Amino acid sequence: MRVRKRKGAQEHLENNPHYVILEPEAAKGRWCEVFGNDHPIHIEVGSGKGAFITGMALKNPEINYIGIDIQLSVLSYALDKVLASQAPNVRLLRVDGSSLTNYFDAGEIDMMYLNFSDPWPKSRHEKRRLTHRSFLDTYKQILPENGEIHFKTDNRGLFEYSLASFSQYGMTLKQVWLDLHASDYQGNVMTEYEARFAKKGQVIYRLEATF
Amino acid sequence: MRVRKRKGAQEHLENNPHYVILEPEAAKGRWCEVFGNDHPIHIEVGSGKGAFITGMALKNPEINYIGIDIQLSVLSYALDKVLASQAPNVRLLRVDGSSLTNYFDAGEIDMMYLNFSDPWPKSRHEKRRLTHRSFLDTYKQILPENGEIHFKTDNRGLFEYSLASFSQYGMTLKQVWLDLHASDYQGNVMTEYEARFAKKGQVIYRLEATF
Repeated sequence: MRVRKRKGAQEHLENNPHYVILEPEAAKGRWCEVFGNDHPIHIEVGSGKGAFITGMALKNPEINYIGIDIQLSVLSYALDKVLASQAPNVRLLRVDGSSLTNYFDAGEIDMMYLNFSDPWPKSRHEKRRLTHRSFLDTYKQILPENGEIHFKTDNRGLFEYSLASFSQYGMTLKQVWLDLHASDYQGNVMTEYEARFAKKGQVIYRLEATF
Repeated sequence: MRVRKRKGAQEHLENNPHYVILEPEAAKGRWCEVFGNDHPIHIEVGSGKGAFITGMALKNPEINYIGIDIQLSVLSYALDKVLASQAPNVRLLRVDGSSLTNYFDAGEIDMMYLNFSDPWPKSRHEKRRLTHRSFLDTYKQILPENGEIHFKTDNRGLFEYSLASFSQYGMTLKQVWLDLHASDYQGNVMTEYEARFAKKGQVIYRLEATF
């Protein structure tokens, strides 16, 4: 998700250290202390403006959520949503998806979400796609054995690529939806993008895969 | 594919023993003798009216093709196409997809196609879907190690099911197309169904998977 640079975004994040983890290396292996309980922890890599992570946190108070995005302005908008929600079980992290092992111990994360990740359609940018095998290497390390990734996108090319990438990595597809909004899938929490696309009647793809 | 019963279908097949293998048990392990050469053999399970298998045979003279369908009238229409094509490298077989090990030795088939298989949408009919694990067991036996299945369909539910079924069986997805006709895939040979659906602008799904 690309947004215009937001003035004061940095200060906004720094002024809210309860929600925005400013020294994430220090939290590695100690996330249950950050949340003050030992509930399962789910992360969203590329959390954008935070509608999904906030919606999930409000819906599932027994699960802790961490929204991760590298973009300053985007994360500052997510912070607005988190503050408005007053959800006690959500935190935000401004780090890169490829560096997650610096901030999470092996198996410290119970599940992860990828939603509407940047498709990087050009072949020469394949390595930047969040479902490239190099990212899967990283995710695998912080998830438990048979850890799950739930992925959705409106981008056909990225979904085709990801189905093959997960499969070739040795992951197993638990279930696949080729038109999520036309399916009987219950309890979908929409992202900002998704709500906009849904209005246009565009197809949303979804899958659940396990390592 | 369901078609009206065709009068004289049985006789039509029996009168063309060069193309229609009437005693397939006897051909087991001896298909190279049936074709008179040792070219690779590709089969289509559920070959319908034969447009695909005949088109492929004409296009690839160095490959032998066997169209397999259990329905008498349907197979008789396929025979019309085969006779009209005069392709020397295609044969027809009226047997059930679950019984293939009776007619083919281990590894005797080099590759297989599933095109627009009956979706059997009701859960209680799951076992009848040609991508159910019990069929995969059969296919695996007659294909070589890392044997390939190429599958296409317009049916969203069947494609969703099959992606998960192949994956859970331990197969690997080589490539996936979620809108074949909008893609840059070259050399697609259309089935009767496909040509009709393509006119309507309907999405065709395709995948290539290996054991």
